[in-house]
Amino acid sequence: MAKDMTLLWGSGSPPCWRVMIALEEKNLQGYNQKLFSFEKKEHKSKEVMAMNPRGQLPAFKHKDVVLNESYGACMYLANQFKSQGTKLIPDCPAEQAMMYQRMFEALTFGQKMGDVIYYTYKVPEGERHDSAVKRNREALTAEIKLWEGYLQKGSGSFLAGKTFSLADVVVYPSIAYIFRFGLCEERYPKLAAYYNTLKNRPSIKASWPPTWLDSQGQDTLKDI
Amino acid sequence: MAKDMTLLWGSGSPPCWRVMIALEEKNLQGYNQKLFSFEKKEHKSKEVMAMNPRGQLPAFKHKDVVLNESYGACMYLANQFKSQGTKLIPDCPAEQAMMYQRMFEALTFGQKMGDVIYYTYKVPEGERHDSAVKRNREALTAEIKLWEGYLQKGSGSFLAGKTFSLADVVVYPSIAYIFRFGLCEERYPKLAAYYNTLKNRPSIKASWPPTWLDSQGQDTLKDI
Repeated sequence: MAKDMTLLWGSGSPPCWRVMIALEEKNLQGYNQKLFSFEKKEHKSKEVMAMNPRGQLPAFKHKDVVLNESYGACMYLANQFKSQGTKLIPDCPAEQAMMYQRMFEALTFGQKMGDVIYYTYKVPEGERHDSAVKRNREALTAEIKLWEGYLQKGSGSFLAGKTFSLADVVVYPSIAYIFRFGLCEERYPKLAAYYNTLKNRPSIKASWPPTWLDSQGQDTLKDI
Repeated sequence: MAKDMTLLWGSGSPPCWRVMIALEEKNLQGYNQKLFSFEKKEHKSKEVMAMNPRGQLPAFKHKDVVLNESYGACMYLANQFKSQGTKLIPDCPAEQAMMYQRMFEALTFGQKMGDVIYYTYKVPEGERHDSAVKRNREALTAEIKLWEGYLQKGSGSFLAGKTFSLADVVVYPSIAYIFRFGLCEERYPKLAAYYNTLKNRPSIKASWPPTWLDSQGQDTLKDI
């Protein structure tokens, strides 16, 4: 039981979900956790800010060590619990390189996804432009096609090859997110297969966003 | 001699510089390398695109393995050459966690820096707003103050504590970049001390951007 760990999180947030998947893969169940609502702006609450001064979720603590960056928390868990649960960093240099390549490319993917999905949240009303919306959507389309291609050309069912790795831990929540926001499964069959197959992986099932279980997603990305 | 490695790079680019520092720290001198000009848009040349289809620099190759994401290349080198040159990932869990925290927070720093420095490059003329420029500059100021505070409260001369780590490898080029773009050394004394002290570290000296040696920087950030 991971009683020396604490996670403050929000439902549906890819960064939070990543850390939860890593914890599950490392058999670190039973950690202290508390769910906060983004809608109610609870990520800006005193309780969150005390652990994460940026007022963002996740906020993660292991003993005295605070690690709020989701990629950082996942890498830390993979390193500190190397021989516990799933081995998340492959030894093979080529697979390891592919894992890092996909993990960090996914930051670009996340950025482009955010530029589309959070446009009205991020850009004040007087500064919005249809031309920017169009450009952002085109950039996201090109990016999603890249990832569809990666899975098509890949040498296994996972992002870095034949085994589940940190690349899947950090990228899966973003893939799930784009489908939640209406991406067409028929148009992106490889991404859809990846999304649907991994849905049943125990770590992902156990950490599935609770707010997604009983509500419909949105259709922001249906024409992408 | 690292003759089985190739780096395509551009002068002054923090992502390229990171990889070069990591190579130096791991005593991997003598790699094949080629300098490209961003001004002449050579990062979109066939030669670069063949190795990095995103048309970005760096592009990095080790034997058959291509790894173009700068964070990924640095982590790969730290892992594959663990016991060669500088140990870049501390064993101590608290220092390791701090290293990851600072590394990944630096992505936010880099984003905010780019929002200011590349504003006219990234935003088409008809979509520019003084209110956005002002907001971006305020966000960058708050971010730089955070980092000044980290160095003030830190328990050593480096970003993750008493030893040089991957956090310094990936963040130093961005710190140097903001000073190159005119940040006031008097207003940020801890960042300035960090910047000036590490200037003389062999890995950093050896990889200093050649275009910075014989030209003046800009003053974009002088009022930040």
